[in-house]
Amino acid sequence: MNSAHENAAEREQAITDEVLAAFSATADPRLRAIVRSLIGHLHAFAREVRLTEGEWEAGIDFLTRAGHLTDDRRQEFVLLSDVLGLSTLTAALDAPDAPGATEATVLGPFFVDGAPEIPLGGDLAQGAPGTPCHVSGRVRSTDGSPVGGALLDVWGADEDGLYDVQYPGERCAGRGRLRTDADGGYRFWTVLPTPYPIPHDGPAGDLLTACGRGPMRPAHLHFKAAAPGFRTLVTHLFVAGDPHLARDAVFGVRDSLVVEAAHHDDGTAPDGSRRRGAWTSMAFDLVLAPDHGSVPGR
Amino acid sequence: MNSAHENAAEREQAITDEVLAAFSATADPRLRAIVRSLIGHLHAFAREVRLTEGEWEAGIDFLTRAGHLTDDRRQEFVLLSDVLGLSTLTAALDAPDAPGATEATVLGPFFVDGAPEIPLGGDLAQGAPGTPCHVSGRVRSTDGSPVGGALLDVWGADEDGLYDVQYPGERCAGRGRLRTDADGGYRFWTVLPTPYPIPHDGPAGDLLTACGRGPMRPAHLHFKAAAPGFRTLVTHLFVAGDPHLARDAVFGVRDSLVVEAAHHDDGTAPDGSRRRGAWTSMAFDLVLAPDHGSVPGR
Ligand SMILES: [Fe+2]
Ligand SMILES: [Fe+2]
Repeated sequence: MNSAHENAAEREQAITDEVLAAFSATADPRLRAIVRSLIGHLHAFAREVRLTEGEWEAGIDFLTRAGHLTDDRRQEFVLLSDVLGLSTLTAALDAPDAPGATEATVLGPFFVDGAPEIPLGGDLAQGAPGTPCHVSGRVRSTDGSPVGGALLDVWGADEDGLYDVQYPGERCAGRGRLRTDADGGYRFWTVLPTPYPIPHDGPAGDLLTACGRGPMRPAHLHFKAAAPGFRTLVTHLFVAGDPHLARDAVFGVRDSLVVEAAHHDDGTAPDGSRRRGAWTSMAFDLVLAPDHGSVPGR
Repeated sequence: MNSAHENAAEREQAITDEVLAAFSATADPRLRAIVRSLIGHLHAFAREVRLTEGEWEAGIDFLTRAGHLTDDRRQEFVLLSDVLGLSTLTAALDAPDAPGATEATVLGPFFVDGAPEIPLGGDLAQGAPGTPCHVSGRVRSTDGSPVGGALLDVWGADEDGLYDVQYPGERCAGRGRLRTDADGGYRFWTVLPTPYPIPHDGPAGDLLTACGRGPMRPAHLHFKAAAPGFRTLVTHLFVAGDPHLARDAVFGVRDSLVVEAAHHDDGTAPDGSRRRGAWTSMAFDLVLAPDHGSVPGR
């Protein structure tokens, strides 16, 4: 209960104190820490800007619209987290403190669990339109040893900037899983990714517009790499030279993840196949950090 | 673009700085201040607790569930704001700095705009079950003068702790609008409000349970008072003696808003009517702050 206080600042502080006290009985210590930190910063934000009732209502409406737009194919809350930089910050916070490991970046809203597995060297484009692109590399540990049998999830946008989940109907294209060979090697065909706008016909897009920001992401290919004994890595390969690298709508770019795409015409591909017409190739190694989660004392 | 940095703390700070810089082109100064403060506190929260990807996912799921539960009759985002104390803090922040004005408190999720108008002295229970309750008082300005023609919205829960919007079907009960007479006086019949749990079968309820908190609110009647030239007041009348006054799930209680309910059996009511059986009465004056919004220099 909030008693009379000398002045507004004391009255407001008493409200925050009362709320924090009410959550002090939280049994789980991690949840208690998270909830109390969240309340502290949420209240500090409201006080710092002197939030009005009308602005609070606008915030409620904004979240309601985001919720109603979210379904199996659209995740507006992830987009909001992305454009506010929370996703990329969380990826950095949660990254293993392992020198030499490949940097992590955002998962994004287009990951689909359980994509079909393709053989090494196969084509995961599955009819997605675009310039053929051969991608190859090795997965290794921070100690330099190859990681055989690692499970790679790869997904990317086509030449129109669309992921398969944005196509009408149910189709899998520009997406697949594969396993590294005994030497940690991997290779596959897909289409060269292109820059694309994040879905911006909802609250996240309205926010970008109101704040003078654009919805574009630089061309990239998503990777998720998992192997027993290693921390799962979620990252991107960015295509060098993209004009949007310096203003990614979701702040996902890391310099270490930018890779040159070689452009070819006709000729023999790295897998020995004869190509007609334009194609491209990129090389991208992934370095995984050992998972010490189960080692006593870590 | 995020370049290589000496250590994790610098890398994380660089991310926050990059995000803040991206929003610096926001044209509207008020929106710019709000968005930048929000980003600062959101990032500070994530860093303070070292948010993990799994916890971030749990947060996204939590918001998604809240969005899918929200419709015309249920507002889970308002409930979340309520149980985290943001609603009551905003009410305090937005209250006029006018000594003597009635304290504001939360609107809550059960307000319905455009309730039917009843005559002074009429019954807004409209069949809601409960002990009849006569409520009367005066609306005046902080300078003591009566406010005639003020529009009062009143809504409350019945003896089962339910609002009309929680009844099956479409019904208006325990809710109505009325206008003060020339002397600022008002009077109406309703049912005595009882303590009730906020809807707790969704994410807000899960949070309360996980944090060892209950969903109960002490018995109260909602008031919204509007009159030309005055700041609109949103407040409650709380019934004295309720055991939940010290642990309101939404932190809405203000000592100055707690009122004794007089209990009667048979006899003559304040409006001269003869009553059979138990009934109650409460008196509650509302003091409105002048609206100086349009006065130059304020
Ligand atoms: Fe993407
Ligand atoms: Fe209520």
